[in-house]
Amino acid sequence: MLKEINIGMIGFGVVGQGFAEILQRKRDELSKKYGIPIKICGIFDPVKGQIFEKKGIDLKKTLDAVGRGRKIQEVVKGISDIDEDYLIKNEKINLIVEVTPTNLKTGEPGYSHIKKALQNGKHVITTNKGPIALYYKELRKLADKKGVCLKFEGTVLSGTPAIQFALNELAGCEIKEIRGIVNGTTNYILTKMASGLSYEEALKEAQEKGYAETNPEADVEGYDAQAKALILANVILGSSLKPVDVERIGITKITFDEVNKARAAGKKYKLIVRVIKGEKGITASVKPELVDSTDPLFHVDGVINGLIFSTDHLGEVFIKGPGAGKIETGQAILHDLCSILESVKK
Amino acid sequence: MLKEINIGMIGFGVVGQGFAEILQRKRDELSKKYGIPIKICGIFDPVKGQIFEKKGIDLKKTLDAVGRGRKIQEVVKGISDIDEDYLIKNEKINLIVEVTPTNLKTGEPGYSHIKKALQNGKHVITTNKGPIALYYKELRKLADKKGVCLKFEGTVLSGTPAIQFALNELAGCEIKEIRGIVNGTTNYILTKMASGLSYEEALKEAQEKGYAETNPEADVEGYDAQAKALILANVILGSSLKPVDVERIGITKITFDEVNKARAAGKKYKLIVRVIKGEKGITASVKPELVDSTDPLFHVDGVINGLIFSTDHLGEVFIKGPGAGKIETGQAILHDLCSILESVKK
Repeated sequence: MLKEINIGMIGFGVVGQGFAEILQRKRDELSKKYGIPIKICGIFDPVKGQIFEKKGIDLKKTLDAVGRGRKIQEVVKGISDIDEDYLIKNEKINLIVEVTPTNLKTGEPGYSHIKKALQNGKHVITTNKGPIALYYKELRKLADKKGVCLKFEGTVLSGTPAIQFALNELAGCEIKEIRGIVNGTTNYILTKMASGLSYEEALKEAQEKGYAETNPEADVEGYDAQAKALILANVILGSSLKPVDVERIGITKITFDEVNKARAAGKKYKLIVRVIKGEKGITASVKPELVDSTDPLFHVDGVINGLIFSTDHLGEVFIKGPGAGKIETGQAILHDLCSILESVKK
Repeated sequence: MLKEINIGMIGFGVVGQGFAEILQRKRDELSKKYGIPIKICGIFDPVKGQIFEKKGIDLKKTLDAVGRGRKIQEVVKGISDIDEDYLIKNEKINLIVEVTPTNLKTGEPGYSHIKKALQNGKHVITTNKGPIALYYKELRKLADKKGVCLKFEGTVLSGTPAIQFALNELAGCEIKEIRGIVNGTTNYILTKMASGLSYEEALKEAQEKGYAETNPEADVEGYDAQAKALILANVILGSSLKPVDVERIGITKITFDEVNKARAAGKKYKLIVRVIKGEKGITASVKPELVDSTDPLFHVDGVINGLIFSTDHLGEVFIKGPGAGKIETGQAILHDLCSILESVKK
């Protein structure tokens, strides 16, 4: 049983701020529900600044400072001469929230942060896809050895239940296939193309709305979906797939004509992730597929995501919800925090 | 930490047999996963028979016997001179699975079984709607006082995640509304009516397929959905509603003409459960509503069920899956068993 949760945050971008915002709102309620005080004691972000205060950081002031473009340490009281290692090694901190930008090729710097945090006996929550897609088995083994939690609900479908959903709520079932839409950017573009825009027009609109990056490669070429396919396969189905094992085709080759033909036939193109437990083991792929209106994924439009779990006892179970967003991904961290609170309160 | 799980089953109808069937298949795998041996040590059913064997009942023989219309005690080795109280009070048994027929008016006999089992310090899993719809608060308080688990995933949407889904996987969110289709029989009838059958024809077909009872009142008048609305409201949103608080309108007054008009307008009638957290507290209702194709519930057809959770952090999260069935409801019990195993293994 833990007496208190003292969080150190590495990274304080959109997702980190989203988490801080909702934690600030819900902290008293959650502390009361689980009977454990919750504090953020430290933040380190190379751009937004850093601070450590063992009594807990003033989150309102922190969010205000960042919102006004000030460095955190200029506004918030505490020790400011710190780096990420200070938080990872600090005795007061027992939970590291790792939310640095993801790197799908190396997993860094998240991978090193998470590894060091686990080695130092800290619980870890992350929304960082790279480290989990590339190094899940190693990190899970380390967490188990150290007797700490490693949670990462936000790596797939943001706060919409997906990973713990499969592990906890489908427990007892054999999952034979996971199929779905896990990338909001490409789904937005394909939805817009289905309503008459060209690829270039749809991409431009996605960029203007903040759904797509200036360099959209990770989304439109399927790298983001590939990382999520790896997470679903390795975490839920227990495989040891690597990126090279996951067939990956993006959406950039789909033409205006093809989309129109599909529409005329009552179909839609969707970028589909598919993880299959077959006779030859687990296989995974990401590619555009045509779906018709009898498929639940036909009705997953815009930035919304959806997953179908095919199981032995329940047939198909379908879940749909947001796949990205500041508060939505912050919620994934809050969910993981609740799950840790539930397990440590005993 | 428990050294073993020894189950006593009260009731051995379709759902009980479904659970026994899948437990038999998955037992070794689950015992290994959680590191705890799992046995069914006793069964009592007023029709199918009864047996107690502290070393564990031979499930294959039991299922074969029941399948061939034999009384369990005629075929399976063990002590046969027992009743439900024997199982509830037996020191060897630490988990009671209560799956007797539901009574939505009194909750009996399930209510008394569950209460006595909790009083005797046994964990309880049930799929029996009556006791949970009518006496949740009292039973929860008793379970907490005795430090045992009370699980009932199968009371809503059978094994499709709904209750623990909301409590565990949406933890951190405020749920503002739950809206959905929770009765497969009426949804099957309405789906068939939408494809051209009259109410009488659709009901007859549902009865022939085993989806509707000879006396279909509990389904078509909305009593079953009302009980589920109560469970959603009282368990997930923490209210203390009683049946009289839940507005209830069934599907029997929907005419052929109304269904045709709806179809011409691109709409469908669905029997909708709605639980709302409003300024005046929690309200709940069951009534037919017209939905259009932009509503996820429009695409929930036949005996499938679906729920939309409206939340502060995630907006709408939608889940769809089977709502009834032998194996599907057996899976709900297996899920609850996994959840207990997870919590007692520590």
